Amino acid sequence: MLVWTLLCFVNHIWSVNHNVFQVFSGCGWWDGTDVHEGVYTMYHLSRNGARFQMFAPNQQQMHVVDHVRKQQASGENRNMMVESARFSHGQGMMQMQDLSKLDVNSFDAVIFPGGQGIIKNLSSFAKDGKDCKLHNDVERVLKEFHRSSKPIGLASMAPVLACRVLPGIEVTMGYERDENTRWGNWPHTNMVQAVKSMGARHSGCEPFEACVDEKNKVVSTPSFMWETEYHYHYIFDGIGNMVKHVMRMSTK
Amino acid sequence: MLVWTLLCFVNHIWSVNHNVFQVFSGCGWWDGTDVHEGVYTMYHLSRNGARFQMFAPNQQQMHVVDHVRKQQASGENRNMMVESARFSHGQGMMQMQDLSKLDVNSFDAVIFPGGQGIIKNLSSFAKDGKDCKLHNDVERVLKEFHRSSKPIGLASMAPVLACRVLPGIEVTMGYERDENTRWGNWPHTNMVQAVKSMGARHSGCEPFEACVDEKNKVVSTPSFMWETEYHYHYIFDGIGNMVKHVMRMSTK
Repeated sequence: MLVWTLLCFVNHIWSVNHNVFQVFSGCGWWDGTDVHEGVYTMYHLSRNGARFQMFAPNQQQMHVVDHVRKQQASGENRNMMVESARFSHGQGMMQMQDLSKLDVNSFDAVIFPGGQGIIKNLSSFAKDGKDCKLHNDVERVLKEFHRSSKPIGLASMAPVLACRVLPGIEVTMGYERDENTRWGNWPHTNMVQAVKSMGARHSGCEPFEACVDEKNKVVSTPSFMWETEYHYHYIFDGIGNMVKHVMRMSTK
Repeated sequence: MLVWTLLCFVNHIWSVNHNVFQVFSGCGWWDGTDVHEGVYTMYHLSRNGARFQMFAPNQQQMHVVDHVRKQQASGENRNMMVESARFSHGQGMMQMQDLSKLDVNSFDAVIFPGGQGIIKNLSSFAKDGKDCKLHNDVERVLKEFHRSSKPIGLASMAPVLACRVLPGIEVTMGYERDENTRWGNWPHTNMVQAVKSMGARHSGCEPFEACVDEKNKVVSTPSFMWETEYHYHYIFDGIGNMVKHVMRMSTK
């Protein structure tokens, strides 16, 4: 009984020190948050005992993409928060919440899972490249977290957001050239050049690794910058490493 | 070099013996395939060295649910295959495919991740309860797999499909009464009564367990029959156990 009480207390302290939120931008690689990256992040937060909440802008997506044809679906509109809610179960604080109502002081860490929602909905990168603008709330979150020295986790395309507003940070977006590796390839290397031209340092990483900028408390992992057929578990491991470093850095 | 060649050969043999397909019914708990259950299944297949393909009916969903309000979104229509493609990356065989074109002889095992798509799109259970009809292709797959003694994996609500057409099988849908357990509860226990009245045997399981019917080669796990706030990793473990038993049984 004493041991159980002690375990619950330790678990409580550990959880209180890891109050994390994730920012979503829809549901699906081509027009929102990638389902694998979003789900892997939630899994690793859960496995490692963090408390987490989920936020997305309560606004229209840039567009809707038919994920079979990989083409814009004409005449369709979808709301980021409503589509992102496909990731959430449960009620109240565990529902998808409106990003504009977020109080950054309530949280110890933030994670942005990737997907093209990063460059279409949370920034104008898809249109404006390295000169892109960020969604107001995304810019606010990143600047306030950086100012408070709280950790920021980023998967696949998400480093673009941080590199645009936090000068001189170190990130990874995977390989710098599109080499065919054993189980996949790297089709988005133009984005590596873009973050470099924003002033970031780029560190090459494998899909199962995370790049840790200790000074700026920025942790990134390549995720689906690597296009693979069957080897999803390497991406799972990379997000696991990213989440663990973010949680380590968020311990008060 | 010899060791490497040998390893590749062993990996090849192992993979050839585990050609698995998953059946999707959309993207999201309330109107399709749950994103967590779909992603966890793909992860565990990947981690354990299986080859897998993904199929969904190329037809309209029953309806579209706004996952914030948990109410039907009026005037919207979505196609199951197009929405399910939000789970797939890559090209060709790794894209979401039309279930009506599936050749069951090409595969050693099938897995149905759960979500309300099971009772709304792949069957009429949401409307007709225990007397529901199955989608033609779903009925064909289940009957042919059972006849060929090939394993069938089922998560959360998916046992309803198998119990409707395979008499006397043993499955789990979690707890038989809605007890508040430490980290969640069981809001869908009426479905346990339904599968029993279809003639199935029901075995109570925890979310991290799988129920194995060795004789009929049917493996099930409760998944999101259990509603939890933060403890997603127990569901992840349950799906992991289900996938491993399915793969064990699919070895020729």
